[in-house]
Amino acid sequence: MPPTITEHEFKAHCRTTPQDDDKDEADLHLYRITRYSDGTVKLRNSNIELMDQDILYHLALGSESHDLQEMFGDVKFVCMGGTPKRMENFAHFIMDEIGYKLPAGTQLQDISAYSYRYSMYKVGPVLSVSHGMGTPSVSILMHEMIKLMYHAKCIDPIFIRIGTCGGIGVEGGTVIITEDALDGQLRNSHEFTILGETIHRPAKLDKKLARELKSLASADDPYDTIIGKTLCTNDFYEGQGRLDGAFCEFTETDKMNYLEKLRDNGVVNIEMESTIFAALTHHAGIKAAVVCVALLNRLNGDQVNAPKEVMHEWQQRPQILVSRYIRKVLAQHGQLKSLFGHQGSIKSPRRFKLVQQESQAHD
Amino acid sequence: MPPTITEHEFKAHCRTTPQDDDKDEADLHLYRITRYSDGTVKLRNSNIELMDQDILYHLALGSESHDLQEMFGDVKFVCMGGTPKRMENFAHFIMDEIGYKLPAGTQLQDISAYSYRYSMYKVGPVLSVSHGMGTPSVSILMHEMIKLMYHAKCIDPIFIRIGTCGGIGVEGGTVIITEDALDGQLRNSHEFTILGETIHRPAKLDKKLARELKSLASADDPYDTIIGKTLCTNDFYEGQGRLDGAFCEFTETDKMNYLEKLRDNGVVNIEMESTIFAALTHHAGIKAAVVCVALLNRLNGDQVNAPKEVMHEWQQRPQILVSRYIRKVLAQHGQLKSLFGHQGSIKSPRRFKLVQQESQAHD
Repeated sequence: MPPTITEHEFKAHCRTTPQDDDKDEADLHLYRITRYSDGTVKLRNSNIELMDQDILYHLALGSESHDLQEMFGDVKFVCMGGTPKRMENFAHFIMDEIGYKLPAGTQLQDISAYSYRYSMYKVGPVLSVSHGMGTPSVSILMHEMIKLMYHAKCIDPIFIRIGTCGGIGVEGGTVIITEDALDGQLRNSHEFTILGETIHRPAKLDKKLARELKSLASADDPYDTIIGKTLCTNDFYEGQGRLDGAFCEFTETDKMNYLEKLRDNGVVNIEMESTIFAALTHHAGIKAAVVCVALLNRLNGDQVNAPKEVMHEWQQRPQILVSRYIRKVLAQHGQLKSLFGHQGSIKSPRRFKLVQQESQAHD
Repeated sequence: MPPTITEHEFKAHCRTTPQDDDKDEADLHLYRITRYSDGTVKLRNSNIELMDQDILYHLALGSESHDLQEMFGDVKFVCMGGTPKRMENFAHFIMDEIGYKLPAGTQLQDISAYSYRYSMYKVGPVLSVSHGMGTPSVSILMHEMIKLMYHAKCIDPIFIRIGTCGGIGVEGGTVIITEDALDGQLRNSHEFTILGETIHRPAKLDKKLARELKSLASADDPYDTIIGKTLCTNDFYEGQGRLDGAFCEFTETDKMNYLEKLRDNGVVNIEMESTIFAALTHHAGIKAAVVCVALLNRLNGDQVNAPKEVMHEWQQRPQILVSRYIRKVLAQHGQLKSLFGHQGSIKSPRRFKLVQQESQAHD
């Protein structure tokens, strides 16, 4: 958090009360059991406050080894995506976008490097975290990120997944905001097995947030940004009806019938993380959205083979949309100006480059 | 592959026919549909051979961009584990153990670095690959590794997962070889959703291989090595009956009853990858085993909090067992001697160290 704004002021700025969001009775109840009166995250697990320490094992953080409130108390946006590389890129991108300046002589550090599991970068109010592939990997991270929000006393954090996906009837490069996340049986829920019992939790995302993200697509964007249903699967090959896995026990006709059935049900994309992400954020009363870019149109094929440069540019598109949202929220709360207000270490990028070159020449 | 042995000789050495393994009729049938007459891996998916190219997208390899047979044709052992770091460590460990020497001026390279998904290291006949956390992440890797075995024309490869787990009634540090992998409903199978239909495939591992691994535990090992049933879950917290997740809707008594029920069913450990690993290797006719070390006894608690150095030493134990097996198989086929026969670049480690220090002093 930049020093020109106090923590108290920041929290007052950022606080969004349920009244703001046209929440219904069920939402209000959920808000009450997942928030303290000051808006900080309350856990739906009373065991945690009774523990001597809580080790967030897969994040390489602990409630007694680290001052989690000091480190993370200002976090407002938790952005997640599959690979460490993409989330490192997003951290640098959002740093430029919100004008966040690092102190001289510092650089971003992977906060969870010693977990060897996930990568986490912090850029002021934004966390950028990798979640790996598939719902179990996301599940572990979500438990620990929600506990982190609690220990850090974060106020109304917003979680956004920035992903890649296969499109159904939409071209590669299209940005897709998830309206509802569906499981393999097209249910809008995620199935959990707890103590041997199977239960379902609704895979609900915040519809207002989805609409707000959609509204930030620009007519000048050289690609489409759409809202639709997302199918979440447990496999990339057979699980998504691909013909090119190590096994394939169906025909191309079976596959096409299946993909067309998906399309008829309003499914516009397929990925592997949305139901658990939606179910656990909803259960924790955390506002969440999923924004993916399609890497191909599955109605045309199975293999992802756009050139690397094209794929790289496509993967920036959800980041651009999410960045517009973060900038807008920060600006609304007077936070963006305070971030930009800081003088960074580089006064002239052109002269900075010249000095670097000069310096290298004297090696 | 070291130059003193031809590829043909290597294949003749390494080939294990089903007759060697006391296989029954069903196994013989499986062997016939998953092997060509020369013992190389045959895919149960005829689409692949009709494709112009097959991009192993998550491995950053392709059947036409890379000479996969030249690169991987000598692979006999595919070892997998959760984190890139552990599998990099295993690659260096197994290099020492089998006496594999790199050419002067070379070092191990992460073959799949540009996928940003998995890490893969090759040490002669051994591949060491990270698979991430949870069954979907393993599923993607297995499809691509099995296809890689096919493209590379590998002969009867053996897949071994080297993992960590929670023990049930066994102390931290115990090495556990999986006899049967069970899903959340204690079924010895993995559930797949393919084109919207739910199917089960047997999660069968090779019992003879499990016994052989067990026989390589030494009476001098300062820890136990046991065989038992492994529960595979889709979550680390609620899914494994932990009280310390972001959510907990059961009591400590419920949890203990559940863990004791598991123990009564012969379950000795819980992890998150075994059913898919067993189901897909079995479906591909590939001999496979799962060897894990317990990081704690779940009957005593939920949090993993052994000191880092202790955990590090524990994680080496499954690696030591698997290394004994690899050395034994290579020795049986006369391969170990040929690997050790090569002169490495370091004649005297002591003098090597001195030269390094001397060199640094002249910086």
